[in-house]
Amino acid sequence: MTFIRKTSISKVEAEKITLRGTPIENLIGNCSYGEVLYLLLLGKLPTLNQAKMLEAILVSVIDHGVKPPSTIAAVTVANTGASLNSSVAAGILAINKFHGGAIEDAMAAIGEAVKLQTTEGLDAGEAAVKTVANYKEQGARISGFGHRFHAADPRTIRLFELAKELGIAGKFIEQAEVLEKVLTEKSGKHLPINADGAIAACLLEMNFPPKIANGIFMIARTAGLVAHAVEEQANHPPMRTVEVENYEFE
Amino acid sequence: MTFIRKTSISKVEAEKITLRGTPIENLIGNCSYGEVLYLLLLGKLPTLNQAKMLEAILVSVIDHGVKPPSTIAAVTVANTGASLNSSVAAGILAINKFHGGAIEDAMAAIGEAVKLQTTEGLDAGEAAVKTVANYKEQGARISGFGHRFHAADPRTIRLFELAKELGIAGKFIEQAEVLEKVLTEKSGKHLPINADGAIAACLLEMNFPPKIANGIFMIARTAGLVAHAVEEQANHPPMRTVEVENYEFE
Amino acid sequence: MTFIRKTSISKVEAEKITLRGTPIENLIGNCSYGEVLYLLLLGKLPTLNQAKMLEAILVSVIDHGVKPPSTIAAVTVANTGASLNSSVAAGILAINKFHGGAIEDAMAAIGEAVKLQTTEGLDAGEAAVKTVANYKEQGARISGFGHRFHAADPRTIRLFELAKELGIAGKFIEQAEVLEKVLTEKSGKHLPINADGAIAACLLEMNFPPKIANGIFMIARTAGLVAHAVEEQANHPPMRTVEVENYEFE
Amino acid sequence: MTFIRKTSISKVEAEKITLRGTPIENLIGNCSYGEVLYLLLLGKLPTLNQAKMLEAILVSVIDHGVKPPSTIAAVTVANTGASLNSSVAAGILAINKFHGGAIEDAMAAIGEAVKLQTTEGLDAGEAAVKTVANYKEQGARISGFGHRFHAADPRTIRLFELAKELGIAGKFIEQAEVLEKVLTEKSGKHLPINADGAIAACLLEMNFPPKIANGIFMIARTAGLVAHAVEEQANHPPMRTVEVENYEFE
Repeated sequence: MTFIRKTSISKVEAEKITLRGTPIENLIGNCSYGEVLYLLLLGKLPTLNQAKMLEAILVSVIDHGVKPPSTIAAVTVANTGASLNSSVAAGILAINKFHGGAIEDAMAAIGEAVKLQTTEGLDAGEAAVKTVANYKEQGARISGFGHRFHAADPRTIRLFELAKELGIAGKFIEQAEVLEKVLTEKSGKHLPINADGAIAACLLEMNFPPKIANGIFMIARTAGLVAHAVEEQANHPPMRTVEVENYEFE
Repeated sequence: MTFIRKTSISKVEAEKITLRGTPIENLIGNCSYGEVLYLLLLGKLPTLNQAKMLEAILVSVIDHGVKPPSTIAAVTVANTGASLNSSVAAGILAINKFHGGAIEDAMAAIGEAVKLQTTEGLDAGEAAVKTVANYKEQGARISGFGHRFHAADPRTIRLFELAKELGIAGKFIEQAEVLEKVLTEKSGKHLPINADGAIAACLLEMNFPPKIANGIFMIARTAGLVAHAVEEQANHPPMRTVEVENYEFE
Repeated sequence: MTFIRKTSISKVEAEKITLRGTPIENLIGNCSYGEVLYLLLLGKLPTLNQAKMLEAILVSVIDHGVKPPSTIAAVTVANTGASLNSSVAAGILAINKFHGGAIEDAMAAIGEAVKLQTTEGLDAGEAAVKTVANYKEQGARISGFGHRFHAADPRTIRLFELAKELGIAGKFIEQAEVLEKVLTEKSGKHLPINADGAIAACLLEMNFPPKIANGIFMIARTAGLVAHAVEEQANHPPMRTVEVENYEFE
Repeated sequence: MTFIRKTSISKVEAEKITLRGTPIENLIGNCSYGEVLYLLLLGKLPTLNQAKMLEAILVSVIDHGVKPPSTIAAVTVANTGASLNSSVAAGILAINKFHGGAIEDAMAAIGEAVKLQTTEGLDAGEAAVKTVANYKEQGARISGFGHRFHAADPRTIRLFELAKELGIAGKFIEQAEVLEKVLTEKSGKHLPINADGAIAACLLEMNFPPKIANGIFMIARTAGLVAHAVEEQANHPPMRTVEVENYEFE
């Protein structure tokens, strides 16, 4: 027996296309990209400020120089004379556990701490201390804090500032900021919230499920991968060496 | 000898990230996604209306039901228990010559006709007739016109309406509309401008190079691929059959 | 600081190429493909019979009709006018946890049972009973047994027969056969060793690490993916529907 | 209307699997890998010597050090914590026009020269001169000759020696050798047949269609990609830099 896949994302009939039930012509030009992306991923329209926050997140990781492994993979493939989509696909394949994937892990850690506030009646500081202890006990590392390159990540500063301006900031961003303090105290080295951690806190404020976090990163970075692959093929002869200095976490 | 790849797209230094020379914190939250995407791809900020047009284009092809080959490839891979990025990469691999790629070909055809207006002193109608004849002589098909499914594509209607509202519409959209008439007359069957053709005309109005057109489609559709892969893994057991009815061009 | 990646797999100098230390010209035409593949993957030459066994394993999963998700993904992408390598890459992306990946899981289960023979002084039957109980306790399923389609998998029968002829068969294949009996008794339904399970037992007999098992499947199946993608592009117009009946586990 | 894809490559029914019409249990252990691969790709069994030649070709390009872009792409992705199949797929995406793809182009050039022998009654030398002139007139480069790294490619020497031993060598290998002489004379620099050119001549001797040549390279190199990805994940921490010196054509 065969069957037809069903989806609640979009529907195509003759002369009629709907996204999450809304005719596409009502969305085109009437809603910002952030609004429609939120609708597509979460099934309902966001507030205007949530849409702006989502766009800000996309902008913050739209590209990051020559060193990310996704950029290296895309450019390496572009340099063999590949089609643009092959180059982009190779880049996407590098957006994984250790590159982009930290957002999901950071959402789990921040989310766990916030949950402890409710379930155990703790304040943000106590919840941070307990979460750090829980992770240590399991031999796990809390993602989203510390950066080999940026002592203070300009993206984090701006994203949190914006979240406060837009009224998005709540207990998750507060918890992330307290976690930074506790981690820094416990470890004795400065472990600032990095872009992964900041995005994690912002996505939690907007009810994004952790499973989709790496997808948000891919949606943003596809733009950068397209730009690098096109630039590489325009500027360089094929089969030159692709080479970069040592890579730093984003 | 080894060397470091240079790029003009973005630059990362300690605590400083720039996109096309602009500090990223000046862009986050201050520019819409459309503005920053245009900056990233073309190297300069667009007008506000160009940014709105670009966002409208992304929205128009953000997703298209269960039948596109990119969706089938992504869902097929998702269904094997793959990571989200593997699923998305497989989908991207299907965005090719015959799926998404028609935008680039349509840009070439519309662009050729508009060029004939200048080089041979023709009006839009004469240029359309000559372009159709040139393609016929070479045994080639003009992309971007006709759809097996939509007699009038709701996306085309809305994109052109919006382009006129925003003051983006010019000689390329006019030329596309005249080409539709000429193609329909010459072939004896209705060949409406489809979404690929409409996007082609709009991108030409904003000076996008044809080489990047398939990239625009990928940037838009990555969102849909993420949504389908996440939905598939949430709702279905692994290794079921992925099956769809016969596919129609978008 | 930058550095050069080191590998013990192969080395290229002017007019000199070595694989695992052996000049490539000594291998070409003097060693069978199975011998060189074993050398490449495990770092030393196999016996002739081990090489034959490895080739038999590759042959057993070189292709499997129209229904495997890897074939569907490859053909779907081929059908969009993609390059051959894009089509093959999409197929490879489907060779995952639930498709090809069962070999690794079956190696773990059979290996655990064989280990119990030594560590707890059990015979194969007792080790099978304990392993089945251990898996049940953890709510896990033992991979490599049972098939929706083949009541007796012709590949299993032939691979085990061959392993015995070649003197490869030992405690792992014996353990797999006893596991089949115990699983069938305990579950009350026939759970024959499938191709994944048979390959798992054979790879264990030849000291392959479980981590590489899915790689063996990929090496074999790339041939089938190439054949299907080439056939699809030769025989069919682009953008037709790719459709199959419900998929069965291999 | 939906339909089921038909294939002549393999067929799966309950307890019965055939490859090109032959039951798979008759092939497993009775035919070498080279024989079954030839059967799968070309639809009939080869002679034993053709099978040996095909295996020799696979061995000659099974791996090539740290520098090929396919290896860089695979290792870059492996280094992000990716699954083995994602890493291999990224490598496959780099096997393209300028990496692996030269075999197909060399087959076209050597094939054209051999055809000129018949159609214009030329000897191999005259056919080489005319082919070189034809390519020059079209501003095209003949692939398969010259190497930045190997003045005499040890793989070429051994493959041609073997082809002669096995009785495979005929007019295509002769033509390739004459083309080397003519190209070297005309250009004033040594342009030895490289591995791509040698494989091209050997595949032509065995009636492989040029369209499948890049597929042969992929089938061979998947083994190397698996080996490198597994080695990388075993030996190195994630997110280190992948870096190589300047790449040379294979």
